[in-house]
Amino acid sequence: MKALRYYGPHDVRLDIVSEPRITNPNDVLISPQWCGICGTDLHEFLDGPIFCPVKPHPLTHEAVPVIMGHEFSGIVKAVGSSVSSVQPGDHVCVEPSIRCGTDCPQCREGRTNCCSHGGFFGLSGWGGGLSDLVVIPSEQVFKLPEDLPLEVGALVEPLSVAWHAVRLSGFKAGQTALVLGSGPIGIATILALQAHDAAKIIVSEPANIRRKQAAEFGIHALLNPQVDDVVAKTREMTGGDGVDVSYDCSGVQATFTTGLHAVKSGGIAFNIAIWGKPCTYNPNECLLMEKKIMGSIGYVGQDFADVIKAIEQGKIKNFEKMITAKLPIAETVSGGFSRLIHHKDDHIKIICTPHPELLP
Amino acid sequence: MKALRYYGPHDVRLDIVSEPRITNPNDVLISPQWCGICGTDLHEFLDGPIFCPVKPHPLTHEAVPVIMGHEFSGIVKAVGSSVSSVQPGDHVCVEPSIRCGTDCPQCREGRTNCCSHGGFFGLSGWGGGLSDLVVIPSEQVFKLPEDLPLEVGALVEPLSVAWHAVRLSGFKAGQTALVLGSGPIGIATILALQAHDAAKIIVSEPANIRRKQAAEFGIHALLNPQVDDVVAKTREMTGGDGVDVSYDCSGVQATFTTGLHAVKSGGIAFNIAIWGKPCTYNPNECLLMEKKIMGSIGYVGQDFADVIKAIEQGKIKNFEKMITAKLPIAETVSGGFSRLIHHKDDHIKIICTPHPELLP
Repeated sequence: MKALRYYGPHDVRLDIVSEPRITNPNDVLISPQWCGICGTDLHEFLDGPIFCPVKPHPLTHEAVPVIMGHEFSGIVKAVGSSVSSVQPGDHVCVEPSIRCGTDCPQCREGRTNCCSHGGFFGLSGWGGGLSDLVVIPSEQVFKLPEDLPLEVGALVEPLSVAWHAVRLSGFKAGQTALVLGSGPIGIATILALQAHDAAKIIVSEPANIRRKQAAEFGIHALLNPQVDDVVAKTREMTGGDGVDVSYDCSGVQATFTTGLHAVKSGGIAFNIAIWGKPCTYNPNECLLMEKKIMGSIGYVGQDFADVIKAIEQGKIKNFEKMITAKLPIAETVSGGFSRLIHHKDDHIKIICTPHPELLP
Repeated sequence: MKALRYYGPHDVRLDIVSEPRITNPNDVLISPQWCGICGTDLHEFLDGPIFCPVKPHPLTHEAVPVIMGHEFSGIVKAVGSSVSSVQPGDHVCVEPSIRCGTDCPQCREGRTNCCSHGGFFGLSGWGGGLSDLVVIPSEQVFKLPEDLPLEVGALVEPLSVAWHAVRLSGFKAGQTALVLGSGPIGIATILALQAHDAAKIIVSEPANIRRKQAAEFGIHALLNPQVDDVVAKTREMTGGDGVDVSYDCSGVQATFTTGLHAVKSGGIAFNIAIWGKPCTYNPNECLLMEKKIMGSIGYVGQDFADVIKAIEQGKIKNFEKMITAKLPIAETVSGGFSRLIHHKDDHIKIICTPHPELLP
């Protein structure tokens, strides 16, 4: 079968490899239809290997080359003998974590996303979404509504990242939010906040194109931090004290500081971005106004189920607008990575398919 | 009457001033019996004025000299016509905040302690505990159990600071805690944690004398950060992942870093210390392990009620051991401030009385 494999920095190849098979009664064989390119994939391509194993991964026992792609939807081809949750022909998406499977303190408490011993399909071995076939344990396979186009099914993964963050922040209907940065995760956060019935969503984004994109998603106010005093304007728009929660989707000193200043007393400055270096923080800020600083990484299974339910109920809307390009997997590097490197701000989510016939 | 008044740095005088009177039907006239010296008082003495008003305070309309003392117990001498909660002869303690009294965003939500327009009896004018008489609004006067020695009634205020922090952190019975620094607030935090039925309290303190003092309060483990790997030992003692909550009662880079590293995934690094300068923080710490950073300042009325109830129920124990010296108010500076400046680690709480006959 075809499979896009990561060998090392700037070295990704479309290979012919042997097909995976169901070996466990709990396995589901899936034919990936659409797979999004994630910032993580780009990091591996440019600066990796970061997550991709150079030595055999302790769980998958695989090392590079490994099959890429962890944001994908597909069609079930076959199921193991004990699988009853899905059947051949079902449209599905995949929660791509590889669980450590031990009694580690994080997994024991259901924080499988914080487990430092696990891995990811599409990064750590055992296959991925940028290939013709992949085998996934049934508890990580989520059935999609039949009338949902499979291409938007590939967005359930990034939406789950944002959903997890909004859920963990305890965001309640009628509350207000500031989203710092409107890249893919910023947009997904806006959509998750809308589904949580936010009373007001304010977005701060310095890139003109990204501000224009964000405006498509029905937010309440759009600020440019290079021109606007984001903290003052946010306070003005929220009765003087600031928003209930700010979501940092950028991960730089300016967004950290703005996010912390722009929340009300008792509010939460929530971080979803991965940081390149430490920042400066004055603990008196959390002391004097009893603010909280939080963060989250990835998702757990519940988030996928919640996102799919919110899509079915029409609470997550317009998310198809996140897709800014569609490509065959053969062009993942030449058409996908290259655009995200050279024209990053033009794109929210680029998705690829192993089935060129699906392209217009 | 006698009153200890703050004039400026290194200038505190025992004056004779006119007696305050009940002017509002809600007022309570109190004869202070014992009043603790707080780190805030010492800061005013050494580096002030910080809180003490140089220009007339917007609420009290007083400027220096102002009467000192905000950690006090006393006996009710008279009450205004609408006061029914206490009566003359009652033993009481006082929640010493001066409320802004406007519809400010913090006070509206009950976070009177975060209001930036308020003040404090004993710092901002309207009298204080280091004097013969003071008038306080009845809702800030809390009746003490009759059999409780009034000298320990003066500890309700510092205990309320710690109680507020432990309450805000959502600490639950059976959870584990690391207390960083065992000065007065560290000890009060240990006592509040015991009252919340902590399963394990680990204390880290570099000063030998303070570690010896902390050992008196029945904790589970005592670490010296100059010798011990506090993070590794804390993880060892808590099943590998760390404590549920760490309480930073020191406010320096080392305690911040240790406190954040020593909490489990999903745990809380809580700060009760006032910081002199910003620190370095890596947001990936809260991201990858979904930890939280929180802080609190002071207390609200509920905390005083809770602390007194916990004392009555015997849940806060041994707190009389916090008192390491008793002085007449005439010796507040010569005997109190001077010891806290030159022999800080020897003392937890020094209390003063306007009634020298109460001294042994």
